[in-house]
Amino acid sequence: MDLKTLRINGSRLQGTLEEMARIGATPGGGVQRLTLSDEDKQARDLFVKWLEELDLEINIDEMGNIFGRRSGKNNSLPPVMSGSHIDSQPRGGRFDGILGVMGPLEVLRTLHENKIETERPIIIVDWTNEEGSRFAPAMVASGVWAGALERDWAYDRTDINGKRFEDELIRIGYKKDGPCQKFPVHCYYEYHIEQGPMLERQGKIIGAPKGILCLHWYDIYLTGEANQVGPTPMEGRHDALCAAAEMILKVNSLPDRMGGNLVATVGEIQNNPNSRNIIPDKVHFTVDIRSWDDDLALKAWDLLRSDIETIASRRGCPVKIEETWRVEHSPFDEKLVQRILDTSDALGYPNLHMVSGAGHDASYMNQVCPTAMIFVPSIDGRSHVEVENTTWEDCEAGANVLLHAILQSANESSANID
Amino acid sequence: MDLKTLRINGSRLQGTLEEMARIGATPGGGVQRLTLSDEDKQARDLFVKWLEELDLEINIDEMGNIFGRRSGKNNSLPPVMSGSHIDSQPRGGRFDGILGVMGPLEVLRTLHENKIETERPIIIVDWTNEEGSRFAPAMVASGVWAGALERDWAYDRTDINGKRFEDELIRIGYKKDGPCQKFPVHCYYEYHIEQGPMLERQGKIIGAPKGILCLHWYDIYLTGEANQVGPTPMEGRHDALCAAAEMILKVNSLPDRMGGNLVATVGEIQNNPNSRNIIPDKVHFTVDIRSWDDDLALKAWDLLRSDIETIASRRGCPVKIEETWRVEHSPFDEKLVQRILDTSDALGYPNLHMVSGAGHDASYMNQVCPTAMIFVPSIDGRSHVEVENTTWEDCEAGANVLLHAILQSANESSANID
Repeated sequence: MDLKTLRINGSRLQGTLEEMARIGATPGGGVQRLTLSDEDKQARDLFVKWLEELDLEINIDEMGNIFGRRSGKNNSLPPVMSGSHIDSQPRGGRFDGILGVMGPLEVLRTLHENKIETERPIIIVDWTNEEGSRFAPAMVASGVWAGALERDWAYDRTDINGKRFEDELIRIGYKKDGPCQKFPVHCYYEYHIEQGPMLERQGKIIGAPKGILCLHWYDIYLTGEANQVGPTPMEGRHDALCAAAEMILKVNSLPDRMGGNLVATVGEIQNNPNSRNIIPDKVHFTVDIRSWDDDLALKAWDLLRSDIETIASRRGCPVKIEETWRVEHSPFDEKLVQRILDTSDALGYPNLHMVSGAGHDASYMNQVCPTAMIFVPSIDGRSHVEVENTTWEDCEAGANVLLHAILQSANESSANID
Repeated sequence: MDLKTLRINGSRLQGTLEEMARIGATPGGGVQRLTLSDEDKQARDLFVKWLEELDLEINIDEMGNIFGRRSGKNNSLPPVMSGSHIDSQPRGGRFDGILGVMGPLEVLRTLHENKIETERPIIIVDWTNEEGSRFAPAMVASGVWAGALERDWAYDRTDINGKRFEDELIRIGYKKDGPCQKFPVHCYYEYHIEQGPMLERQGKIIGAPKGILCLHWYDIYLTGEANQVGPTPMEGRHDALCAAAEMILKVNSLPDRMGGNLVATVGEIQNNPNSRNIIPDKVHFTVDIRSWDDDLALKAWDLLRSDIETIASRRGCPVKIEETWRVEHSPFDEKLVQRILDTSDALGYPNLHMVSGAGHDASYMNQVCPTAMIFVPSIDGRSHVEVENTTWEDCEAGANVLLHAILQSANESSANID
């Protein structure tokens, strides 16, 4: 057959996604499939059943990562890999992560029913705990696999009820014997919803991120002086919440002050004693800074740090600043990114060379082998919420791009990306 | 004996306060004696034992208020009453409330050992649940007693674990048969720590508040749009926490903008989903405004309301505003307040005519009979915290003022305050 005319089955992909969306479905139309929960197990079991139907060689490792391997003509060549994650945010959406597992599943089903053999083996993967919302940090199992994180450290992560990652992995029956460690991979594709509004704003269907933004996380701890509000004059107060409010606005104006190309957000705040008639004396908040330009992010942090220290000093609220996490920007393989754009062109899908603001398992895979991602539009740019949505047409389009990108890579006999 | 030379026993008062401070003592040097807790029961039992040692007539009513009555020469005359509360804030201090119960106890002990009879009976009272920190609202049992609140409504208040007020009152054995309703009282004195820095700042020992500030409570609910922070550009965000931060600063600057004579505070904030990589979409915060001038407080609220609506509109975060509670300023009986100042002068204690920023059981008593309060300095103005402190000398001074104010009132045969 002429491979160029090959297409995935959009209605079958829709059915697969709909069936998965029933596992952990929430009243608001989303899903809650927290990592290593009963819902995660139920979705994994269904995924494994589907892999078995395709006669794949299934391997589950000691971190619960699930690999389904389709043989190639030459099984000594490193495989092409594609996947994402089955777990979700609390009250999350029906597309984040799962689209990147069901997408390559649909690709393999298409190859299977058309009896298409490739030169290289193809591996589909579900990475455990991408979200990090039950067990921090995020992307932990692809991180262990890539050698960037320690397995035993990951095992000891606990959820808010003090349950250990390893114990919960055993409980749902997904701690197996296979070592969680990288093996040679020809290239890795991750198919994902955009989680932002850029594709929609520009009327595009496919996004090919040139890489992932750098990420800086900071934790700010302020100490004020708690007192009964009524008898304490305004003069001489040390109100830690007011100091935090000033700082939050400085974070919010940081991108403008740096001339753009940066996002900066305070997502989390704890206020103590958090009583309506006591002046707050202990406030903690987080800062998240992302940019394609690592230097710009560092300069922005220098400015913000100085803002924070000035405000803390003026308000008499001593501040402790923790530089919690820094990841440099991660450029994907240029040839592979170009392949996504070219494939989209060939298939007639308007496309956009862009960046990824969010981290993905692809970030760690990018340390192991040439990596690229395929984005499809998020309606209204919404994600991590129950109303997260993507049209079935766009899901189908992205899977077709993935199909042809995989086909091309899996038929490359050279170790180089053509 | 010459009553003018009579003094309370300062070291006995100190011993009494120290013994009470052992009940519910916290590692940080404060006490935690939440209303209707085991610690509250233990402190009540000790208080009742001490009342029995003075041969007082003890009555406990259906709200758990404890009254100890010392007969006068003419028991048909309405009694003089004095008291406060035994319960504390979570991780509260060793003086708030308890000083106003142990103070009159020391006065009665002094009268008892000196075999001094008064014309009128004297009643000492412990009011249940003044703090309101376990069961909102505050001052609930003096409110029921004064006829301002409904008993059955108070019974149905629940704590954060869903336990009912009435059930907890029964559990600790302090729900008795006596009706909780006001009876004729000649006048009421409440002895309390200042909970502010004014006495200390001005080098005074005794404060006589002319009354209690008006109190306005508002609840502000903001709705923004939650999204993953990385892929969502700054432009077009609807960040509910940034809107709240602007509003908090408007609250903080309100007293200055109104020309003073006002305090305004945000003590409590809830942020959702409160995740470091999601833009906040639901924020609730409280506003507390207090002033001696009710009109000024209302004008301040008008200005703030307009600030809030402008910010909400500019940031595209719809706002819901609740006007939760308003109490007008409450002036105490002028003659009784003057008596506190005169008595302090006579005893040689530097004194200050001031206001009370905090509410007290005296607020409700002020609706029933002529009422006044006696304040002593709070070190560094601190209260509702474990480091709350007042010198033993000042505790003694306040109790001596209370002794002579009570003696004078209890020997008045006329219904009028002289």
